[in-house]
Amino acid sequence: MCSIGVWGDYARVELWKKRARVYVEKTKRFLVSLCREIWKAGRDDPRKAVHSIKVGLSLSLVSLLYLLEPLFKGVGANAIWAVMTVVVVLEFTAGATLCKGLNRGLGTLLAGSLAFLFEFIARESGKVFYAVFIGTFVFLVGAMSTYLRFFPKVKKNYDYGIVIFLLTFNLITISSYRVEDVLKLARERLYTMAIGSGVCILMSLFIFPIWSGEDLHTFSVSKIEGLAKSMEACVDEYFSDREADVGKDKSMEDPIYENYKAVLDSKSTDETLALYASWEPRHTWHCNPFPWQQYVRLGAVLRHFGYTVVALHGCLQTEIQTPKSVRLLFKDPCTRLATEVSKALTELANSIRNHRQCSPEILSDHLHQALQDLDTALKSQPRLFLGGNGSNPANMLALVALSKPEKQLSSVKTEASALSEWRSKRVSKQSIEAERRSLRPTLSKIAITSLEFSEALPFAAFAALLVEAVAKLDLVIEEVEELGRIACFKEFELVGDGVILNVEDKSKIDVNLPSNTSE
Amino acid sequence: MCSIGVWGDYARVELWKKRARVYVEKTKRFLVSLCREIWKAGRDDPRKAVHSIKVGLSLSLVSLLYLLEPLFKGVGANAIWAVMTVVVVLEFTAGATLCKGLNRGLGTLLAGSLAFLFEFIARESGKVFYAVFIGTFVFLVGAMSTYLRFFPKVKKNYDYGIVIFLLTFNLITISSYRVEDVLKLARERLYTMAIGSGVCILMSLFIFPIWSGEDLHTFSVSKIEGLAKSMEACVDEYFSDREADVGKDKSMEDPIYENYKAVLDSKSTDETLALYASWEPRHTWHCNPFPWQQYVRLGAVLRHFGYTVVALHGCLQTEIQTPKSVRLLFKDPCTRLATEVSKALTELANSIRNHRQCSPEILSDHLHQALQDLDTALKSQPRLFLGGNGSNPANMLALVALSKPEKQLSSVKTEASALSEWRSKRVSKQSIEAERRSLRPTLSKIAITSLEFSEALPFAAFAALLVEAVAKLDLVIEEVEELGRIACFKEFELVGDGVILNVEDKSKIDVNLPSNTSE
Repeated sequence: MCSIGVWGDYARVELWKKRARVYVEKTKRFLVSLCREIWKAGRDDPRKAVHSIKVGLSLSLVSLLYLLEPLFKGVGANAIWAVMTVVVVLEFTAGATLCKGLNRGLGTLLAGSLAFLFEFIARESGKVFYAVFIGTFVFLVGAMSTYLRFFPKVKKNYDYGIVIFLLTFNLITISSYRVEDVLKLARERLYTMAIGSGVCILMSLFIFPIWSGEDLHTFSVSKIEGLAKSMEACVDEYFSDREADVGKDKSMEDPIYENYKAVLDSKSTDETLALYASWEPRHTWHCNPFPWQQYVRLGAVLRHFGYTVVALHGCLQTEIQTPKSVRLLFKDPCTRLATEVSKALTELANSIRNHRQCSPEILSDHLHQALQDLDTALKSQPRLFLGGNGSNPANMLALVALSKPEKQLSSVKTEASALSEWRSKRVSKQSIEAERRSLRPTLSKIAITSLEFSEALPFAAFAALLVEAVAKLDLVIEEVEELGRIACFKEFELVGDGVILNVEDKSKIDVNLPSNTSE
Repeated sequence: MCSIGVWGDYARVELWKKRARVYVEKTKRFLVSLCREIWKAGRDDPRKAVHSIKVGLSLSLVSLLYLLEPLFKGVGANAIWAVMTVVVVLEFTAGATLCKGLNRGLGTLLAGSLAFLFEFIARESGKVFYAVFIGTFVFLVGAMSTYLRFFPKVKKNYDYGIVIFLLTFNLITISSYRVEDVLKLARERLYTMAIGSGVCILMSLFIFPIWSGEDLHTFSVSKIEGLAKSMEACVDEYFSDREADVGKDKSMEDPIYENYKAVLDSKSTDETLALYASWEPRHTWHCNPFPWQQYVRLGAVLRHFGYTVVALHGCLQTEIQTPKSVRLLFKDPCTRLATEVSKALTELANSIRNHRQCSPEILSDHLHQALQDLDTALKSQPRLFLGGNGSNPANMLALVALSKPEKQLSSVKTEASALSEWRSKRVSKQSIEAERRSLRPTLSKIAITSLEFSEALPFAAFAALLVEAVAKLDLVIEEVEELGRIACFKEFELVGDGVILNVEDKSKIDVNLPSNTSE
């Protein structure tokens, strides 16, 4: 009995030891993974680490006001306000810091003046009246400024300023009831806040500055590149031989979705970055203030392009599918069109990244050709939608072959009008080229298939969305060109930024910018 | 000469008077319009005015700590912290206030403990060493906690808490260098903060509380209704006789765009509201905590529905248009389908608004019929895409009339599979009905038209997108049903919430909820 008890104790101890070991192991693993994650976050964006060090440094710097005897004698116990200012104002980007710092300054100044006004009015009256007066005005100013914060225009730029205004106003007004020399209190608060704000602005503007404008710039580039990638991936997957996995849950981890996801939900990011960029002094651009509004406009157009990509992506996931064999007939022109759109987007991204104007020639020339090929391929397939019964396939082929040459020119014009503002000189040049161009080898491969319209519907939608994407691309190009004009991007040159430009015999193109600025 | 001078003076005075009058007039007009705007904002959402009054009241209440002699004796000059807490913590909704208040409390508590730990370690050492020690730790804690704020999970819930932690830690640590009894300082700060937070929580939870959860609820309803409206408007405009104004600028003031705009950019609003709702105690729901996560999921599905509506809207604005005459052939089934989708959405919105489960019968029955009509209409038109040359229209018509009856059943099944998870029992019932149903009168009206495929393309895209919208609708229905299950909505009843339900002879339906919960 006793030995069983001892054995039981032993077993229990062993169990505990085992549990402890497992626990220690788990903790160790958790700590290692935590460290790895922290390290990874810093490596992915070293600016985060830099900013953290900057905050620590500023705090230490400001705390010297309190720690060093001579400085403390000058500023007094109010030095603590400088520390508070640094904690609250020093933000990741220079624009955000400036916005908050100036709001804080403005709010404090305004509140101080107002509080003094009240004090001078009420000072002479009795103690009880003064208390009632303070209570009433604290209520009124509090309610009114809170109400003011609901107006979008005010909220956007001055929300923080109003909070600080309210804070300071209450602080001074209420303190004035007990403290005799409220003027001194306010002055000291203003001084120490100014010191804190000064340190913040110094740190954010001059020591490894991080600009919201640059973030906005990089974000725009990455959005365009994401769209380019997902556009190409969409078409590749549509025509790939692998059986598509259908299901709504897929869209969540899909690489195509990953690429355009950032674009769809970019509105708030764009607007925040633009807001902060609007507070920043000009930095890397040479001739103009930072065109943040144009970046927001570009973002809106990109979002609309993104919606088309979503619809294209939807064609991949829908349950009714055009048979693979039929899809393959159009693989070549569709893939080429998507590649051209994607190439054009990449060129736009590169042009923004390198602050140079984009080459309009490369955008329109190959793209237009691809569009025309798709059109030709679609034109050659009316019999696809007839069904097998009652018609002789051989006759049909002959029929279509006969009718083609006359129709081609007009069809090119129809397609060309889809691009809402196609430069007239290019169109005229290309339509001449189009007349000369013979049918591409693709078309000879096309077989005759029996297909119902309802089955062809998804492909038709796919093709229409591709054409729609081209139309949207034109809007994107317009906005990028406008951006290049406003931000004084350097002229387009053929070599020099790592992009392989495929222009045949025109060595340098004089860029004709559109005269109509978008509102 | 003199009289001219007098006249000149007189004229100048008159000019100034005139200017002053214009200026006064302008100011008056500005003030009137300002007042009107302020009044309008309050009338549109009286909660804004209520919240403003609540803030003013709380501030007055808290300032009594400072103004009333007995209270001031108890709390001392630190009463000002209570005022600061109210200014910063009292937010529009209860959830936001709780989130901020608890963060503030937690941050202060944690910082206080840590600061004391440091103080006890360093207290015994010399003054200079102590200063260096403080400086170093201010740097380290500042840098580390700033770095922590970059992690999305931390940022989402505890960003404000970390700011307050940093603030309090610095305040106590640095103050401890000069102030002897730092424990008293910290305790008072904590007390007054607790008083401030208490007032805030009291005000936000018990006096005209404004719930983020309710906002989220209302926002979801209005989003679904917006989608319903724009869906119907889209199809109406597509088939209307008015010539559509083409142009990208139009989309900005378009009523269709206005209706779905809120959905597209809803992600950040949804997530913010859900975050605050997650801090709120349960309020109006009876059996479960508030299902904020389900609302976010519903929001995501609605956004994807919205992208389809954008693509539909794009069909209206594109430059290549299917001729009106051809479009009109399909007007009836398309309009009916859109009306059914829109009706289903409205029913969903009503069900959420009234906290009752939706009637799944009404959703699937008419909708499926409309879908099938569209399918039949499309099936009857393969010759539409052949072109006029070489075929005899009369023959074709006969051909199609012959081939129809055999094809109908299979086509219904194809279309049904488009709705990704069509309840099996409904499908079987409906396919039997479908067999019995004869061709609708619409089809007899259809004329034979010569049309090229590239011209039919936009219409095909339009039809495919309509079908896509139905598939997306099914996902929306699933999420709403899941929401009804989680939030314990009351059972569906035929009468009682002002919606006209158009169910023919089934009086009460036992709702079969799907067993597969979406991840």
